[in-house]
Amino acid sequence: MSSVICFGEVLLRLSPPSSRRFAQADGFDAVYGGAEANTAAALAGFGIPAAVVTKLPPHEIGDACLSALRARGIDTSHVLRGGDRLGVYFLEKGASQRPSKVIYDRRGSSIATAKQEEFDWEAILADADGFFFTGITPAVGEALPQAVRDALDVCRAKGIPAACDVNYRPTLWEAERAGEVMRPLVKGLDTLIVNEEHAALLLGVSSDRQGADEDERLPDIAARLARTYALRRVALTLRRSETADDNLVSAALYDAPSGEYRRARWIRVHIVDRVGGGDAFTAGLLYGQRRGMSVAETVEFANAANAFKHSIPGDMLLASADEIARLAQSDGTVRMVR
Amino acid sequence: MSSVICFGEVLLRLSPPSSRRFAQADGFDAVYGGAEANTAAALAGFGIPAAVVTKLPPHEIGDACLSALRARGIDTSHVLRGGDRLGVYFLEKGASQRPSKVIYDRRGSSIATAKQEEFDWEAILADADGFFFTGITPAVGEALPQAVRDALDVCRAKGIPAACDVNYRPTLWEAERAGEVMRPLVKGLDTLIVNEEHAALLLGVSSDRQGADEDERLPDIAARLARTYALRRVALTLRRSETADDNLVSAALYDAPSGEYRRARWIRVHIVDRVGGGDAFTAGLLYGQRRGMSVAETVEFANAANAFKHSIPGDMLLASADEIARLAQSDGTVRMVR
Amino acid sequence: MSSVICFGEVLLRLSPPSSRRFAQADGFDAVYGGAEANTAAALAGFGIPAAVVTKLPPHEIGDACLSALRARGIDTSHVLRGGDRLGVYFLEKGASQRPSKVIYDRRGSSIATAKQEEFDWEAILADADGFFFTGITPAVGEALPQAVRDALDVCRAKGIPAACDVNYRPTLWEAERAGEVMRPLVKGLDTLIVNEEHAALLLGVSSDRQGADEDERLPDIAARLARTYALRRVALTLRRSETADDNLVSAALYDAPSGEYRRARWIRVHIVDRVGGGDAFTAGLLYGQRRGMSVAETVEFANAANAFKHSIPGDMLLASADEIARLAQSDGTVRMVR
Amino acid sequence: MSSVICFGEVLLRLSPPSSRRFAQADGFDAVYGGAEANTAAALAGFGIPAAVVTKLPPHEIGDACLSALRARGIDTSHVLRGGDRLGVYFLEKGASQRPSKVIYDRRGSSIATAKQEEFDWEAILADADGFFFTGITPAVGEALPQAVRDALDVCRAKGIPAACDVNYRPTLWEAERAGEVMRPLVKGLDTLIVNEEHAALLLGVSSDRQGADEDERLPDIAARLARTYALRRVALTLRRSETADDNLVSAALYDAPSGEYRRARWIRVHIVDRVGGGDAFTAGLLYGQRRGMSVAETVEFANAANAFKHSIPGDMLLASADEIARLAQSDGTVRMVR
Amino acid sequence: MSSVICFGEVLLRLSPPSSRRFAQADGFDAVYGGAEANTAAALAGFGIPAAVVTKLPPHEIGDACLSALRARGIDTSHVLRGGDRLGVYFLEKGASQRPSKVIYDRRGSSIATAKQEEFDWEAILADADGFFFTGITPAVGEALPQAVRDALDVCRAKGIPAACDVNYRPTLWEAERAGEVMRPLVKGLDTLIVNEEHAALLLGVSSDRQGADEDERLPDIAARLARTYALRRVALTLRRSETADDNLVSAALYDAPSGEYRRARWIRVHIVDRVGGGDAFTAGLLYGQRRGMSVAETVEFANAANAFKHSIPGDMLLASADEIARLAQSDGTVRMVR
Amino acid sequence: MSSVICFGEVLLRLSPPSSRRFAQADGFDAVYGGAEANTAAALAGFGIPAAVVTKLPPHEIGDACLSALRARGIDTSHVLRGGDRLGVYFLEKGASQRPSKVIYDRRGSSIATAKQEEFDWEAILADADGFFFTGITPAVGEALPQAVRDALDVCRAKGIPAACDVNYRPTLWEAERAGEVMRPLVKGLDTLIVNEEHAALLLGVSSDRQGADEDERLPDIAARLARTYALRRVALTLRRSETADDNLVSAALYDAPSGEYRRARWIRVHIVDRVGGGDAFTAGLLYGQRRGMSVAETVEFANAANAFKHSIPGDMLLASADEIARLAQSDGTVRMVR
Repeated sequence: MSSVICFGEVLLRLSPPSSRRFAQADGFDAVYGGAEANTAAALAGFGIPAAVVTKLPPHEIGDACLSALRARGIDTSHVLRGGDRLGVYFLEKGASQRPSKVIYDRRGSSIATAKQEEFDWEAILADADGFFFTGITPAVGEALPQAVRDALDVCRAKGIPAACDVNYRPTLWEAERAGEVMRPLVKGLDTLIVNEEHAALLLGVSSDRQGADEDERLPDIAARLARTYALRRVALTLRRSETADDNLVSAALYDAPSGEYRRARWIRVHIVDRVGGGDAFTAGLLYGQRRGMSVAETVEFANAANAFKHSIPGDMLLASADEIARLAQSDGTVRMVR
Repeated sequence: MSSVICFGEVLLRLSPPSSRRFAQADGFDAVYGGAEANTAAALAGFGIPAAVVTKLPPHEIGDACLSALRARGIDTSHVLRGGDRLGVYFLEKGASQRPSKVIYDRRGSSIATAKQEEFDWEAILADADGFFFTGITPAVGEALPQAVRDALDVCRAKGIPAACDVNYRPTLWEAERAGEVMRPLVKGLDTLIVNEEHAALLLGVSSDRQGADEDERLPDIAARLARTYALRRVALTLRRSETADDNLVSAALYDAPSGEYRRARWIRVHIVDRVGGGDAFTAGLLYGQRRGMSVAETVEFANAANAFKHSIPGDMLLASADEIARLAQSDGTVRMVR
Repeated sequence: MSSVICFGEVLLRLSPPSSRRFAQADGFDAVYGGAEANTAAALAGFGIPAAVVTKLPPHEIGDACLSALRARGIDTSHVLRGGDRLGVYFLEKGASQRPSKVIYDRRGSSIATAKQEEFDWEAILADADGFFFTGITPAVGEALPQAVRDALDVCRAKGIPAACDVNYRPTLWEAERAGEVMRPLVKGLDTLIVNEEHAALLLGVSSDRQGADEDERLPDIAARLARTYALRRVALTLRRSETADDNLVSAALYDAPSGEYRRARWIRVHIVDRVGGGDAFTAGLLYGQRRGMSVAETVEFANAANAFKHSIPGDMLLASADEIARLAQSDGTVRMVR
Repeated sequence: MSSVICFGEVLLRLSPPSSRRFAQADGFDAVYGGAEANTAAALAGFGIPAAVVTKLPPHEIGDACLSALRARGIDTSHVLRGGDRLGVYFLEKGASQRPSKVIYDRRGSSIATAKQEEFDWEAILADADGFFFTGITPAVGEALPQAVRDALDVCRAKGIPAACDVNYRPTLWEAERAGEVMRPLVKGLDTLIVNEEHAALLLGVSSDRQGADEDERLPDIAARLARTYALRRVALTLRRSETADDNLVSAALYDAPSGEYRRARWIRVHIVDRVGGGDAFTAGLLYGQRRGMSVAETVEFANAANAFKHSIPGDMLLASADEIARLAQSDGTVRMVR
Repeated sequence: MSSVICFGEVLLRLSPPSSRRFAQADGFDAVYGGAEANTAAALAGFGIPAAVVTKLPPHEIGDACLSALRARGIDTSHVLRGGDRLGVYFLEKGASQRPSKVIYDRRGSSIATAKQEEFDWEAILADADGFFFTGITPAVGEALPQAVRDALDVCRAKGIPAACDVNYRPTLWEAERAGEVMRPLVKGLDTLIVNEEHAALLLGVSSDRQGADEDERLPDIAARLARTYALRRVALTLRRSETADDNLVSAALYDAPSGEYRRARWIRVHIVDRVGGGDAFTAGLLYGQRRGMSVAETVEFANAANAFKHSIPGDMLLASADEIARLAQSDGTVRMVR
Repeated sequence: MSSVICFGEVLLRLSPPSSRRFAQADGFDAVYGGAEANTAAALAGFGIPAAVVTKLPPHEIGDACLSALRARGIDTSHVLRGGDRLGVYFLEKGASQRPSKVIYDRRGSSIATAKQEEFDWEAILADADGFFFTGITPAVGEALPQAVRDALDVCRAKGIPAACDVNYRPTLWEAERAGEVMRPLVKGLDTLIVNEEHAALLLGVSSDRQGADEDERLPDIAARLARTYALRRVALTLRRSETADDNLVSAALYDAPSGEYRRARWIRVHIVDRVGGGDAFTAGLLYGQRRGMSVAETVEFANAANAFKHSIPGDMLLASADEIARLAQSDGTVRMVR
């Protein structure tokens, strides 16, 4: 069965239980996740076969990570083993006026120190019908920009649609360097996901209508991005943070061939765990496209996947496509299912 | 001391801790509950003696259930022991846009397979000053509709006021069959609790003024129910679900002899656990009637009991009558008690 | 390094986990706290050296309390050991319409039975650059009003600025007695913290403009308090309780020498733990004064400290001054830090 | 149904989870127990109706204690409510070479401050067929020695067999004072439980054959005790502590009318929780006597109850009489029951 | 990759945390397991591909079970979905003199109600290089004896070696009926695992030398079993229960073609969790055979797998073949690996 | 107050709860520890002022580590802040035949990348009356052997007694390199702690009497070590591992000036947590010397500290000197303290 290949780092996430601060923790809840693995997990939950390509250390913490991926139904047959360590990140969940806080401890991880030639993309992509990476992957290791380029070359040769979530992380690299690396990588992609800020910062595309309403700015940005980078579809994500507990999420999708632009309705989310919302969005987008949904349906589904993720502890969306569709089509009331 | 006899199934409820989904659970929080037992527990908390009539398997899980009932001050001297198993239900607590989900695993339980003749109603109701069942009881076991009928016959003979919460559960039986069974059972009751939807579906009573405001529709429905089924009092419950975390609750009470109709103010609840709200409402109603409250006081008290329940984990309301009265009479502000 | 001396009782707080009621607890979360210790902990977190003066029993629970203070960076070199027991308080955290509930079990504690002469204030205050107590301290033990008086005498002699949070607790003493004791104690303080209700009840100062807006009433009260009691600064705290989960907090600060009055903006807090908010406020106030902030900056900082505390489990604010400053200056949006 | 009346203090026990020391605890496991309540719980588990007579504070922690007693099937209809507080004890569970440690914080508890006249023994003992207290009860409160005397007077008048476990606690009172109080109380009891050390210290009875084997010393002591204090039966308990994890338990029973002496075999226990072993022993003894077991059967059953208790967390034995009988009769192998 | 097909029921196991009794549990630890799934998990841990054939209900608890199997690396592509429920078993872990207790609640499970024709053995066994079932499988559902027969027919036709662990459970069926069903099923197997008691009870084979030492009895029994049932290899397992915490395990293996008999050394185990020891043993046996170990090496490896399992919570052995080999070859000392 | 300066790395230790394997962990218990910090904590517990010299990252995990040290009463005023990360180690606690397993993830930690000149030994050792390091310190970072040399130079100049525990860790460096570095470092120390294996491997000293009893080999080794390296005292530690749960510990102490050799009795420990036993031993040794104990008393005390540590979760000994002395002098029985 052909599957979507998701390439990137998987980390061990450690977070103090309930609302405790780091200095109050005498234990950490542990999950394994990473942008691409989260997307793969969400796809698998929707019934779309998905594989993670990464490198894990050959010890028991690496094994535990592998188990966690398998538990979510992810194909792990392309996971490399070797190197020294699994990247770690510490997450303190915010509450009320206190923001969530992330401390990364990912340097020197197995994937970060992997070599270009360890990835046999011809084999990995042999049965693929999709390829996905985020802007974190090339930022994490020296050889990884080239590894992504290699993968994209094979995708182009085989006609495999590739998608990227720009996902710029200032703690990993400078915006200038990130832009230099990312611009060639996003050229010619099937689907690009980015927010307005990063589109300007890394890809040099912004709207002339600053200050205007989002539905005036975004179509403009999306169309420019599509034109500049020869993209088929551009998704622009939106988030309004009221408190650490309550956010509003929306997103727009632009289909270049038809010129159609649609924005999903704002959904207010009461946050259980906000990590991985964007990854759930990506999975929703890829699902909608694979299932032949319209542009409007696709962006509503993807936004619903994002919203739904906020209700689930951990990095990953655990949900069926039915559950997401029900939310995408709902009038907003939430009734117990029994 | 004469007590209220509550007849129905008690189940083991298993729910993943905090906001976890089923597939994330490596353990379940366990409580014992069921509509009638929940009502009994709330009554006992208010200082009204209450007994549960049910049947539990003769093994340690049955014993544990019995302990849990006793801990709440419920009289368990009429609990039968025998049969194979305790019914189980799995509850995944919802959050934000993700609805709560219930999976029932109650078939073949000790009470479901109980025989009519096991219940010696003359003895059970000897000292009773009330009888309560919900529409779940006759749905659960083949012999149980007849057992309820037997109990109601004894109540009539002894002048014990009987109450029923219609509580229709589509996963247990078809609406048509449910209506056939329930209609004769509710005839002549002292108190009926039902919502608008089930009144129409099972009892064939709805308002002519669809689309009108609730305070125009409900008095009409209540009066018709009272007339059609020869009821003394009819309570109609209301719920508005905004998200899985936030609901609004209200209810109306109609007193047939006086023709008085009162509706409790809407109370917004932030949900810790929404199971058992209706059962707390029933207990509040029975309490108000026993304490000689006015129609208005009674429905405010019962609605406050419902609202208060949403703040308590588990199926059961644990609260004193004072606490509920304070909420019923409050201006809505909630101040620490110290 | 000179430090702020905080004098009062430290208790063991026992609270049922998550939202459980007392009768559902088969365990208690345990933290150590008390108004003055909480203030000291917050100061230490801000980088202001702070010491607690109290008396702890000479057994392992006393040791554990001491460890907890040290973990927060509090100087414990002036803590006396002796007496029988550590005061305990049970806290049931409220939710939705259910108020939080506190049960005190603090009688006969080591500090409550301490003698006046056990406190060698000359030594304790040798390096101090501040002294702080709340109205709880003189209420707790027979000898403690005199101990506070002794300390204040030394402060006056050495020119150490003293602060007091009136913090009236009706379960500890009658308002009349409390007023008699507190009025002489607050006379001549550098800083007084009180709310409107206790200012009237204990200190006999209220506004003539009842019913008027808070910004009309409070300047009046503050000025009268400053005048009557010869205070340099008066802070008046404000709280609006919507539910047990959601409150609004604000506060006003009046600077007598300049006559300047400023009120912090209302901040809506979603409550993780509301104990210790006032103590965090005090620490914020003392911090602002020590750092030479303006009246407006100081009260915004102190109010932000109060708000921030509500997001942290336990009695104590664990936060850096930077975190509080960021909230004090924010536009209200809360974004993940990574 | 006539029941055994157990008179004494019930405490809240707080213990750090797993093997943590006090200073490592950020929470405590909480159970309610006390020698007499533990005995009552064990009796109820064996199917012997048992009631606890005590006094609990009228707040929610008192309610929670009451719930815990009811959960174990104990009759709580004679429990008084009033006074200030529930006694507390902190228990640090030992391990290996580290002994368990208990810190009592029970002064000023509701039962300790109860008055003699609060106990209406005629009413309490109206349906009793047994009375039980331990030496802790008269030690705990000033009025309690007299309360015990009153109860024993009623027992004598009604022919209710009374039992006492001497259970001397040096932290509660001096041996001399304890002896003065206890000696008149034990006179004429049906059953006395004591160990060799306390028999000598409080009751002035020891064996002439110091250094001899236990089966030479104990019959002698038992017979003297029976003679001196006009007792029908005397049980002497034995414990060998190897480590905090492993103990050996045995006990001897002497029947004065027949002169029969039997000692139960030593049982090696791997300790989950050693509190309440003696109380389980007492319950076993009373059970055996009520069921008409022989002296040998009785002491084996009681010793098995003691041993079994060590496998159960908390103060109370939760076991059926069948389970204990199986251990009493077993060859020592322990096979899974499925 | 060809794999070992393991056919049987998977259950949800619910056990009170730590050493609590059922009536003390306010939550259950949850794992998924069953004899055949446990064997598959252990094989997968050893690097031997293994698949489970079972039927799971189509709801989220079924999904969670599937996730758990996948997490252990088990191939779940042959798992059927449908039916009503997942079988449950409650496990109370014993301690000291208190035996572990199992309560089964597995009636009416999806696999128990599966039909013969649902299992397409030609397809399932297409790539198999082994088939395994236990005596529990035919006991659980009416159609399952025939389903096992069908599978064995395909095995014979394809030359796939089949293995069975007799694993007689008296709570599932009578010994007489079990014998009638099992005898034809074991005929001609490659490997049979059984203990002495069940060999006599179900298969009618026992030693003439009752009372003799195990190494005199067992070779005799093994040879007779091999002869009577045309088996290639017979494994006989041994267990000595000292307490619920400490057992000794051993086993013997007889190789019919060579007539070689070897018994593994007794290993003393301190029990963390004793469920699944036999299943780990089976996996060890199959591993040894696949890796071409000698009879002696094989039985030592299998016995070490059994012993090692006792140190792991849950039903399943999580261990690498290296870890087991190290124990099989060790001198008994256990040193930290760092 | 002069204190013992302990120089080395502090790590975050992450271990799966209870007996879970890594792949079963959905959370980790977290403590902070390291050989030198553990020694400092034990000293502080004994009432000997102790300080840790290390370097921690300037983020919140570093802060949390600092809090943990302070909670144990350790002086942290010499702790440097800076660098990238805190070293981590994962610990899977063994059970029965399954050994404990440690996975180190400490490369690139703040202390490992610290520079020689960051440590101002003149200032740090200004008030010291002892210096302690283990062989781990020079192994961890490139500049650390030189930093230790610098510290020892200052000690020599000031007459501060220095102690070292050789503590060889093969995963950190090769034995050859370790020997080259360690041999000059141990020369002239006041106290050396080592085991027989590492004495031979790194320091080139072994007994001629291989195979002989420990009390024949050890005096010989100790005397040679003292002679070769000009040591005042040499302690040799002994451990026998029976299972992962049960070990025996002993140790010998040789006093060069007097030529006195004493060995502590073997103590059998049932292991709660075996990390840090050696560090507790060191603290016991330093305590005994500071308190003027005899050689025999000192080694018994130190060995008792080691044994006692095994009963406490985490890396650190939390015990008073009294508790250790009681064990050192006990006859082996362990009685509850109440």
